[in-house]
Amino acid sequence: MQQQVHIGLAGFGNVGAGVFKNLANNRVLLMERLGLELVVKKIVVRDLKKKRDVAAPDNLFTSRWEDLIDDPNIKIVVELMGGLEPALQLILRAIERGKIVVTGNKALLAEHGQEIFDAAQKYKVPVFFEAAAAGGVPIIKAVREAFVGNHILSMHGIINGTCNYILTRMTESCMSFEDALREAQEAGFAEADPTLDINGWDAAHKAIILASLAYGFWVGTEKVYVEGIEKVTAADIRFAKQLGYRIKLLAIIKAGPRSEIEVRVHPTLIPQSHVLASVNGVFNAIAVNGDVVGETLFYGRGAGQDPTSSAVISDLAEAAVALESPRHNYGFTPHGLYGTCRPIEQIVSQYYLRASVVDKPGVLAQVAGILGELNIGISSVIQPEEHEPDAVPLVLMIHDATNAQMRDAVDRISKLESVKRPPRLIRVETFAA
Amino acid sequence: MQQQVHIGLAGFGNVGAGVFKNLANNRVLLMERLGLELVVKKIVVRDLKKKRDVAAPDNLFTSRWEDLIDDPNIKIVVELMGGLEPALQLILRAIERGKIVVTGNKALLAEHGQEIFDAAQKYKVPVFFEAAAAGGVPIIKAVREAFVGNHILSMHGIINGTCNYILTRMTESCMSFEDALREAQEAGFAEADPTLDINGWDAAHKAIILASLAYGFWVGTEKVYVEGIEKVTAADIRFAKQLGYRIKLLAIIKAGPRSEIEVRVHPTLIPQSHVLASVNGVFNAIAVNGDVVGETLFYGRGAGQDPTSSAVISDLAEAAVALESPRHNYGFTPHGLYGTCRPIEQIVSQYYLRASVVDKPGVLAQVAGILGELNIGISSVIQPEEHEPDAVPLVLMIHDATNAQMRDAVDRISKLESVKRPPRLIRVETFAA
Repeated sequence: MQQQVHIGLAGFGNVGAGVFKNLANNRVLLMERLGLELVVKKIVVRDLKKKRDVAAPDNLFTSRWEDLIDDPNIKIVVELMGGLEPALQLILRAIERGKIVVTGNKALLAEHGQEIFDAAQKYKVPVFFEAAAAGGVPIIKAVREAFVGNHILSMHGIINGTCNYILTRMTESCMSFEDALREAQEAGFAEADPTLDINGWDAAHKAIILASLAYGFWVGTEKVYVEGIEKVTAADIRFAKQLGYRIKLLAIIKAGPRSEIEVRVHPTLIPQSHVLASVNGVFNAIAVNGDVVGETLFYGRGAGQDPTSSAVISDLAEAAVALESPRHNYGFTPHGLYGTCRPIEQIVSQYYLRASVVDKPGVLAQVAGILGELNIGISSVIQPEEHEPDAVPLVLMIHDATNAQMRDAVDRISKLESVKRPPRLIRVETFAA
Repeated sequence: MQQQVHIGLAGFGNVGAGVFKNLANNRVLLMERLGLELVVKKIVVRDLKKKRDVAAPDNLFTSRWEDLIDDPNIKIVVELMGGLEPALQLILRAIERGKIVVTGNKALLAEHGQEIFDAAQKYKVPVFFEAAAAGGVPIIKAVREAFVGNHILSMHGIINGTCNYILTRMTESCMSFEDALREAQEAGFAEADPTLDINGWDAAHKAIILASLAYGFWVGTEKVYVEGIEKVTAADIRFAKQLGYRIKLLAIIKAGPRSEIEVRVHPTLIPQSHVLASVNGVFNAIAVNGDVVGETLFYGRGAGQDPTSSAVISDLAEAAVALESPRHNYGFTPHGLYGTCRPIEQIVSQYYLRASVVDKPGVLAQVAGILGELNIGISSVIQPEEHEPDAVPLVLMIHDATNAQMRDAVDRISKLESVKRPPRLIRVETFAA
């Protein structure tokens, strides 16, 4: 009989049940590949009486997470409960007891990563978290291991499947945001309360994890600029298309000069020829540019029961091996080569600016005048042949400018009498070196 | 001072010099991330007097590979010499002495993988080979580690940058194969002797490594069907485009029923909407479909000094850690879940068939008649409005048929009086489940 490694599973929702199911389905394959058997010995759930889609023996279930900590035979704790508490307590207590931790909890890592990895370092216990960013796409492993010899110059990620589905449907079928969201909910690609997805924060949590890993310090949530997709209109998508762009919710992570990095998540126009523009539906993709490896891209399903369990199981396999072979890397290695985040005011970008203006001569000159005074260059102007009830659209593509410059510009343009509503600003990423 | 790990480097060509250069360039970053320093202590070259683009201290160089074996301080041997001998001897002798091996030698692994990993198993010495497939794209790590919990259902790879560059140029600029090859050579993307690239064998070596890793047994070179791109014409690319396809040199690896797999490399029509159709120029990409993770894709530069050294350095980092932590996985784990390769005669595919026929009525009926008798279904027919000197093209898209069926069909069609030359057959991959 092969050696068994005992696992405690906290959480039996969509992903937890998927891990249990797939460990069972591919049991023989995993034993052949690992030379040992991964066995779930306890499962923590909130409600012992709840009906479950995936069957597991009754005697595995408990409603006390402390049972995982107190069982000396459980060597690996898998935290898939979600939420901050008691997930944080469970993880910290498991580390103190020398139990290896596997988690997919992105919000928790983004908020408490420093605390968790300080404990991991102190107790020399690794914490694995491949499932915390982009589901089945092994981007954590890529950044941490495959590109260990690279300064990461930039990462550009489509890392929220719900937003990408909504934007894809808006692009393909000229739907409104509201209709596309409703469709996503009906198709099971958006939750009943989709707030954290559409306001950009789910993507921001993942971006924080990726940036922290790449740059060796924990990026505070307050340092990240986050804008959701709620205000993207069908018209913006249409005009962007005319200009040769697609609109995606993009996480942008870049190394700047002087050990400064930038981390931001916002709707972004990207050239339709760029490979990220072809990443549609619920799929995720992350383009990573390393100073040695050059451009790379990783693509796959970023959520869902099976893709996410694939990531958890790969962490479990590593954890099982780590039980016998001490590791030097506990999941995150802090270092001092980087250390600050550039504030959004100073971040330079290109922009798409759409204003609703009265349809008479001289308006463009007024708008262009304001931009000129603020030293902001215009790269192109289109006036789509469309009419709003009281105005016509005016779309300008803007050269590199800081966020502060653009905020001033938008303030001043909004005050023009010939401008009907505050102009809409969407950043543009052209992936130039 | 940080702990040093001493490395012996065999080969100081393009990749070997790149590894040396990039270890130096990113020395501080690597020390921060690894907590140790990777130091090249000896470099084996054939000709000590040769001028080199990358500078290294004279006293590191030796022309005897045995010097790496005999130096007890050298713990890791990096084999980047290429060729079968003395690379094989060096690797086997290093393993016997307990030195961890890193290699990028795809031909050697494809031919002698079994022998090398039997030795690795026997002496419990890991062998790393991320650089042996798709350069900077961490596909070995993905298949071995990230997808450890998956049965790999299929892999589809564009894994030869030279061929992809040539086919891309033929597609974009309607060039002939010969002109595109010449351009590739002038641009440094094809070697003076490009045989191994364009005949498909470089891709086949990588496919053998990937298939062996995914399915747990070493696939013999004689089991793999390999067809190069030499016979792809500008007309085929044009007609494929009209039908909504691109032509790529594709490595196709699939699990079949009854522990049987198929491994083949050949020019392939793929739907232009598939993401692999957008992989252009020298870039590589591998689509991996796992039973748990679903569809994924990995993209990046598959060759070149820097991308390949990124892969070697990531292996070096793992090797350095493995020196202190014993491993259970020595790079390749054989298992008995799969074991045979389906012969090409039995492999079912769709096909593009182009015949040069005399321009008169009844020819299509003759061709269709032969296919009908052989029970081969036609899904569509086009007669492009083009003329060859003595004939007109007739293009048929063929439903699923075995290679044996199609060989019979081509034989019989070739013998028709109204068919001027043996028809051209190119396989079609639609990525249906």
